[in-house]
Amino acid sequence: MSQLIECIPNFSEGRRTEVIEAIAETIKSVPNVILLDYSSDYSHNRSVFTFVGKPESVIEAAFLSAKKASELIDMNVHTGEHPRMGAVDVIPFVPIKYVTMDECINFSKQLGERLASELSIPVFLYEEAAVSAERINLANIRKGQFEGMKEKIKDADRRPDFGAQEVHPTAGVTAVGARMPLVAYNVNLNTADLNISKQIAKTIRESNGGLKYVKSIGVMLEDRNIAQVSINMTNYEVTPLYRVFELIKIEAQRYGVNVIGSEIIGLTPMNALIDSAKYYLQLEEFNEKKQVLENCLLSS
Amino acid sequence: MSQLIECIPNFSEGRRTEVIEAIAETIKSVPNVILLDYSSDYSHNRSVFTFVGKPESVIEAAFLSAKKASELIDMNVHTGEHPRMGAVDVIPFVPIKYVTMDECINFSKQLGERLASELSIPVFLYEEAAVSAERINLANIRKGQFEGMKEKIKDADRRPDFGAQEVHPTAGVTAVGARMPLVAYNVNLNTADLNISKQIAKTIRESNGGLKYVKSIGVMLEDRNIAQVSINMTNYEVTPLYRVFELIKIEAQRYGVNVIGSEIIGLTPMNALIDSAKYYLQLEEFNEKKQVLENCLLSS
Repeated sequence: MSQLIECIPNFSEGRRTEVIEAIAETIKSVPNVILLDYSSDYSHNRSVFTFVGKPESVIEAAFLSAKKASELIDMNVHTGEHPRMGAVDVIPFVPIKYVTMDECINFSKQLGERLASELSIPVFLYEEAAVSAERINLANIRKGQFEGMKEKIKDADRRPDFGAQEVHPTAGVTAVGARMPLVAYNVNLNTADLNISKQIAKTIRESNGGLKYVKSIGVMLEDRNIAQVSINMTNYEVTPLYRVFELIKIEAQRYGVNVIGSEIIGLTPMNALIDSAKYYLQLEEFNEKKQVLENCLLSS
Repeated sequence: MSQLIECIPNFSEGRRTEVIEAIAETIKSVPNVILLDYSSDYSHNRSVFTFVGKPESVIEAAFLSAKKASELIDMNVHTGEHPRMGAVDVIPFVPIKYVTMDECINFSKQLGERLASELSIPVFLYEEAAVSAERINLANIRKGQFEGMKEKIKDADRRPDFGAQEVHPTAGVTAVGARMPLVAYNVNLNTADLNISKQIAKTIRESNGGLKYVKSIGVMLEDRNIAQVSINMTNYEVTPLYRVFELIKIEAQRYGVNVIGSEIIGLTPMNALIDSAKYYLQLEEFNEKKQVLENCLLSS
């Protein structure tokens, strides 16, 4: 029953292969850490790494990869479409097994303290680890980006949670936090009318009064000439996939439109799907921890 | 990417705790084997063990547990409601990860050979490992049970696949084989009419022209006063849970009856449920091996 957490740091480098590989090698070199995935976006000039393992090993890998990035990335010459403020821009920790959110918040504080004291990178705690309401949302912390941060960090209300009010000259500043696993989920419609997907997205998302823990936008899939509702599910335990899917079906009916499929992008915890199977199959008293073979294997 | 198989031996002892515990200890003593579950039935006087691990370790645990059972169980004094022919009655191997059915058939032959040569227990290969059509079904092999087998084994068409035409004096004979994971799945109806559940069970099962790999009967849940369709799904990859569930819903309509829930008994592989989630959510191009976090962990 060993503890398992996930870490998904975002680095401000999506073009120089040698830098991206050096970060990957650093993560892989830490014993008991499994690098599940990493991908880079050229126009964003940004890379996302996903790794898991025991908390102490994952924290160590996060620290060493941030150190490597701070040595190889100079934010003064970084350009890209995605907003960013540091060589390692954000480092979220996610509880996976036998770990509470509170423990993950603690891990993010441990890492934040080390980044500040050993690498002189100022750290802001965000999402579940945020110490004030306005720091929950990363966008608030990142306002002004790397270039604007040099001045803004001197404001009383922009004081970092760890480190001096002084941006690292090349590595900038970093946000460290804790959050639930995020499921990237899209639902496809049999219409080429982008406006319909935008209307549905607006109806279902939390910010407009829809379902809690749902962020959504309407987008066009140009190659298929269909509109899509693109969703970030930020807490699939409270708001499960099937509820979003069924609600989109119902809202689509208003326009005489049907759902023709859905897709999950990247990784998802098993339970995000088991939950939906339980709903549709009307399963009574199913205990996924004890009755799913793979869970028994992972916990043994 | 290490290979993983499951073994579910059935022993002819469900009453004497010390014998059941001795078998459990034997299995647990084998390195790299995980005993997931074991349960005993008093009236059947029979116990079922479920363990998993690398093939060589699982085969070793199966052999040692059979040896232990042959030392502690005397079939001449065994009584119980369940048909049986040996101290260890049946030993099926099930492919779980990175193992083919053909490999599991081979494992069952390796074990059969050892049971015969080292313990003098005659072995019949059954299910996927059967070498003739009439030996696929365990019931055919077990005809006459322990008591009748002493004479019947001398018939030309009852010659065991391994060992002499001579029943072990106390341990009897054993069936060893390979099969797909079995999912025990029940669907509950909002009626107290047992006959309706029997009619539905008859319609959906393979033996009466229904769905392939479905065995089903109608039973009464006395404590809830409702009828249930009780199902063994012998290949959930070909015949998935959702198809059985939806077909039962449709058949129930004929009687003005509704499905009020379903249940999975014991262990199930994750994919039996992921498959149903994929169907209901109309998931496009989802790769459970690469996109389910737990699968990535198990294969790393």
